[in-house]
Amino acid sequence: MDRSESLSRAIEAILESYDTHGRINHLEATSLPSRARVKQLLDDLVDLAFPGYFGEANLDALSSRYVVGERCARTLRNLEAACLRAFRADCPERRKTALQTDFDERASEVSLRLLEAIPKIRDLLVTDVQAALLGDPAACNAEEIILSYPGVSAITSHRIAHELFQLGVPMLPRMMSELTHSRTGIDIHPGAQIGASFFIDHGTGVVMGETTVIGERVKVYQGVTLGALSVRGGRDELRGKKRHPTLEDDVTIYAGATILGGETVIGKGSTVGGNVWLTHSVAPNTTVVLATPSLVFKTS
Amino acid sequence: MDRSESLSRAIEAILESYDTHGRINHLEATSLPSRARVKQLLDDLVDLAFPGYFGEANLDALSSRYVVGERCARTLRNLEAACLRAFRADCPERRKTALQTDFDERASEVSLRLLEAIPKIRDLLVTDVQAALLGDPAACNAEEIILSYPGVSAITSHRIAHELFQLGVPMLPRMMSELTHSRTGIDIHPGAQIGASFFIDHGTGVVMGETTVIGERVKVYQGVTLGALSVRGGRDELRGKKRHPTLEDDVTIYAGATILGGETVIGKGSTVGGNVWLTHSVAPNTTVVLATPSLVFKTS
Amino acid sequence: MDRSESLSRAIEAILESYDTHGRINHLEATSLPSRARVKQLLDDLVDLAFPGYFGEANLDALSSRYVVGERCARTLRNLEAACLRAFRADCPERRKTALQTDFDERASEVSLRLLEAIPKIRDLLVTDVQAALLGDPAACNAEEIILSYPGVSAITSHRIAHELFQLGVPMLPRMMSELTHSRTGIDIHPGAQIGASFFIDHGTGVVMGETTVIGERVKVYQGVTLGALSVRGGRDELRGKKRHPTLEDDVTIYAGATILGGETVIGKGSTVGGNVWLTHSVAPNTTVVLATPSLVFKTS
Repeated sequence: MDRSESLSRAIEAILESYDTHGRINHLEATSLPSRARVKQLLDDLVDLAFPGYFGEANLDALSSRYVVGERCARTLRNLEAACLRAFRADCPERRKTALQTDFDERASEVSLRLLEAIPKIRDLLVTDVQAALLGDPAACNAEEIILSYPGVSAITSHRIAHELFQLGVPMLPRMMSELTHSRTGIDIHPGAQIGASFFIDHGTGVVMGETTVIGERVKVYQGVTLGALSVRGGRDELRGKKRHPTLEDDVTIYAGATILGGETVIGKGSTVGGNVWLTHSVAPNTTVVLATPSLVFKTS
Repeated sequence: MDRSESLSRAIEAILESYDTHGRINHLEATSLPSRARVKQLLDDLVDLAFPGYFGEANLDALSSRYVVGERCARTLRNLEAACLRAFRADCPERRKTALQTDFDERASEVSLRLLEAIPKIRDLLVTDVQAALLGDPAACNAEEIILSYPGVSAITSHRIAHELFQLGVPMLPRMMSELTHSRTGIDIHPGAQIGASFFIDHGTGVVMGETTVIGERVKVYQGVTLGALSVRGGRDELRGKKRHPTLEDDVTIYAGATILGGETVIGKGSTVGGNVWLTHSVAPNTTVVLATPSLVFKTS
Repeated sequence: MDRSESLSRAIEAILESYDTHGRINHLEATSLPSRARVKQLLDDLVDLAFPGYFGEANLDALSSRYVVGERCARTLRNLEAACLRAFRADCPERRKTALQTDFDERASEVSLRLLEAIPKIRDLLVTDVQAALLGDPAACNAEEIILSYPGVSAITSHRIAHELFQLGVPMLPRMMSELTHSRTGIDIHPGAQIGASFFIDHGTGVVMGETTVIGERVKVYQGVTLGALSVRGGRDELRGKKRHPTLEDDVTIYAGATILGGETVIGKGSTVGGNVWLTHSVAPNTTVVLATPSLVFKTS
């Protein structure tokens, strides 16, 4: 068989596979949200949150008014388009009234409300950057932190994605959080509720589930899991239930700790040491560490 | 010394270093596989696996035939070119008969065979997406999963890289798996054999070695290592030996668990709890957890 | 309220927020180092370290002289520009005499000195690549390693960032190390001192603090933390103190180990097993492992 024929047969086999497994194709006319565009959208929203940091254009007090106006208008349009695609692609279980005009109106509404939420988000980000400055002895100034700290990048994206999540937008919040996960190694579900002055240091391997609740002035190190207990029960039972822990104000969780369960509460002012495994609550003002692990020393 | 002279001297010193350390240069006319092109190639192959998800073009039932045909032809050419570079650059130890024409023929052959394997790969990916839907209470629909879940991204890339690995292509499989590792934090050697309905949730920090064998309906959480025992013995002794564990069907491995050794088998239906450290086999239908760790509580 | 009015009000609110929280804006005429340009700069410097690996151009013995000359000149200019921005943006605490001309001269000087350091950096990278070849049974040749191993990518970036750090350049070293952290999951502060023949295998989750000191022929696996003990004391007290451990020559640290404290020394030739937690020194030629963890087995 010559190559052209072999290629032709291979293509036919692939097309046949598309017919067989329609579930993992997307061959309808309606487009899905594009990952590249969602990435750009997230970058634009981060730009609005931290003006002057990430673009090439020199912003100054004179020009910022017009630059910001242009950015907001452009971002609003892009956000509407992305939200519209997300509403259309969403699963039937969660769709509200599925009229076309409803989707257009909802996309416009949630997009505007996200823009209106930027000042509130910035109020929180100021506290997060301050927490980073205080929490890391190697940090020197706000600029370095905003430009390069993965923990600050992660909480910034989260606060944006969380707002969209609260506004009932499907798919986009998760796409944004996974883009951030890819970039920082920090995996925070957009449903997680996180209070002011939040700082993740290093961050690689942090996992926070959908129903996590975190208070103010909380500090978390790399490899920390705030997760669910073993997944028992059907998805319908679990959906909507609180499955992930609560950290109260002024809590610090050191590297590698694992805290599981929707009823697990780490009380105000407590500290959880590295590698600790917890499935029960901890009272306020308590330090929990591993008992000195038994180590075996052998000399060669 | 003026600056121009200083720069000139710096350049000379660098060129001298190129002469001294030829081992880490690549200054022969033959090109190495380009990382940027391998990335594009992997993206194109993923596009063939999940049509309509990642490109901008609206695919529909009418146009897909032609779009797919064009993609396959283009991907075939690019894959041939990349394979050819890989064969030429490969280390002498693994080279078969080193005739130039052999490389051209082999590159063509393996490229076609990869395309021919796409339907089989899709058969497996359908089961992987289904496993993700079942395994994550926060998941809603196949679209969200395919667009954003790092675990699904990782198994998709792996099944492609593994096919190339089985076809005896050097370098490219590892380059693809490391691109995926960079993007998802999931590190699966392309040699690992993984059965249907495989789901990694969260994923950051997962490491699976070259000779790992995994059955069907296996679920793995973040930070899990399926690795080798301490590396003793020379590389020649170790190359080719089974060094990494086997997980039988219906096994679940929770976050942070470490399972080591080529003779370690986790029996069918078993569950390994978080942070468990295992270097011996586990019988089927067994749950292994850490004894309740001793924690020390101190109230401030 | 019509949409145009709503948008206008949203923009006003954002501008008001810029006035309120000036701390997280950057609206002065002076530009910050651009993340995109720093990324390109780092890529160019890696290209100089490993000529012929990452670019599209075929380098050969005849053309390399001119290509390298052009690259060095271009990189020098870009590095000067980035250093200048970094000096200007740096925090007052660390600024030396803040004359404009001082910044221009310093930026030129440190840029040239970095280029002059490339041969010395390459001397070390040769040993690092060799260490990777020896340390990973799955590795075959230098090309594969340089093209795809995250550990080699990380040490390459680190040796460049460390040189800039030693030269007193603010911000850029940290930006470079966080770009590398994002790409590899390996988080090494640019201040860390690392000897020859250094190999990180897999790497996701590795964290090494600013005052870490590492000897020669050291091998580290994924998830290892070389960190500080709990952060007590004010930032002024801590800045400059040794807070992170020392690993002497020929030490191996297995996956998930945590070693903390500025006075903690792992003695020459010692091995620290996986998941070990250490806050005290270990004598030379000692193997430290966890006592066989108590596991609980339950059959379903």
